[in-house]
Amino acid sequence: MSKQYSAAMIVIGNEILSGRTQDLNVNYVANKLVECGVVLSEVRVIPDIEDVIVSTIREFNDKVDYIFTSGGIGPTHDDITAASVAKAYGVALEEHAEAKSLLQAHYGAGDLNAVRLRMARIPVGAALIPNPVSIAPGFVIENTYVMAGVPRIMQAMMDHVASTLKGGAVIQSRTVSCALTESIIAKPLGAIQGKWGSIDIGSYPYFKDGVLGVNIVLRSSVENDLEQAINDVSDMVDGLIGT
Amino acid sequence: MSKQYSAAMIVIGNEILSGRTQDLNVNYVANKLVECGVVLSEVRVIPDIEDVIVSTIREFNDKVDYIFTSGGIGPTHDDITAASVAKAYGVALEEHAEAKSLLQAHYGAGDLNAVRLRMARIPVGAALIPNPVSIAPGFVIENTYVMAGVPRIMQAMMDHVASTLKGGAVIQSRTVSCALTESIIAKPLGAIQGKWGSIDIGSYPYFKDGVLGVNIVLRSSVENDLEQAINDVSDMVDGLIGT
Repeated sequence: MSKQYSAAMIVIGNEILSGRTQDLNVNYVANKLVECGVVLSEVRVIPDIEDVIVSTIREFNDKVDYIFTSGGIGPTHDDITAASVAKAYGVALEEHAEAKSLLQAHYGAGDLNAVRLRMARIPVGAALIPNPVSIAPGFVIENTYVMAGVPRIMQAMMDHVASTLKGGAVIQSRTVSCALTESIIAKPLGAIQGKWGSIDIGSYPYFKDGVLGVNIVLRSSVENDLEQAINDVSDMVDGLIGT
Repeated sequence: MSKQYSAAMIVIGNEILSGRTQDLNVNYVANKLVECGVVLSEVRVIPDIEDVIVSTIREFNDKVDYIFTSGGIGPTHDDITAASVAKAYGVALEEHAEAKSLLQAHYGAGDLNAVRLRMARIPVGAALIPNPVSIAPGFVIENTYVMAGVPRIMQAMMDHVASTLKGGAVIQSRTVSCALTESIIAKPLGAIQGKWGSIDIGSYPYFKDGVLGVNIVLRSSVENDLEQAINDVSDMVDGLIGT
């Protein structure tokens, strides 16, 4: 079996914790990682507090292959992600020559004031992540990819990052939807899960247009098993609906 | 100053980590907690793995006043939240008489099969959280509120829970939106933050209809300071737009 690559995501964002903003970045990153054959094993939403950012990064650095962060890389006083990541890895924050020249080209030398130059301050040893939307770059240091919080920018950065990641076997997913309740399918579905050790089977109830139903989701990197197991589930559903 | 109450939320959900589902529960809980005067200090999205659920609950039990979980309380094989919470608190899982009679009344004694009865299995000592949508209850044990993952059910449970929580001073929030960039406001906004220690000021850039702008959000439980600080921010914005 090929190595399984793991990832964690850290959303740095008081605005998510206060309920002001609905996060959309986790879902985007999660879907990209599936395409890359990387398993997202945990997400944390943490406040804009340096000590918390530092300790969270250090903890994940030991646990997973990749860390992704979103938020806190703009020019204002509450943007402390770059400094916190530098601290987590015990390096200084310095003005990055390439980042500075990108910002200079964008703003013009005359308009590149001290505040905008804050966005060129990158941990020593980090490589830049391009930002085609508003230029100020993200960066990668060790296994940690530091991206913007604005979804449009984060998505562009993640698209770039995804093209550089090394992943394992891609997890395929198949879904069977049916207007049955979980109580009805629970026992036979448990038996199918018992039969197929290579497959992760989840069931997710839904309400739609007044109808109660369930999505049965099968996920596996073993495509042949997946096709056979999905047949088992379809047969089970047909049998239950037919009775 | 009154005690500040803190909370953590644990989203138990492979379907969120795999990108299949966009989480909506964190935002709902976050907003309810603001109304209750409780500070949401961290959110974790973790997989449906017993050891991870147990250790996460134990860690937060020491750190925060309230823990909220969503997901994993249905009747299928992947619904392991109740058993995991029981294990975290070192108690048994048992058939809860009241939960059983609720399910009996809903399904009728004849249709209350063993699978459905799984949803009446609650950690010893827990109290029920009503589920007006589909009856199977959530529960609270120690400081931990265990709720469903389906947003409509989770919201109904959270509405009930919120009415029972003890909170501190409610955090008020005011927002100033303007078509300025963060680079322009960063320095004067930093000075306003320096002046008002009782206020948490965040700035959140946005793109809307092709215009780049920023939302400046001020949050505080000290209403008088908040009104004065919002005047400072408005004056700053007027000054910058006027120039």
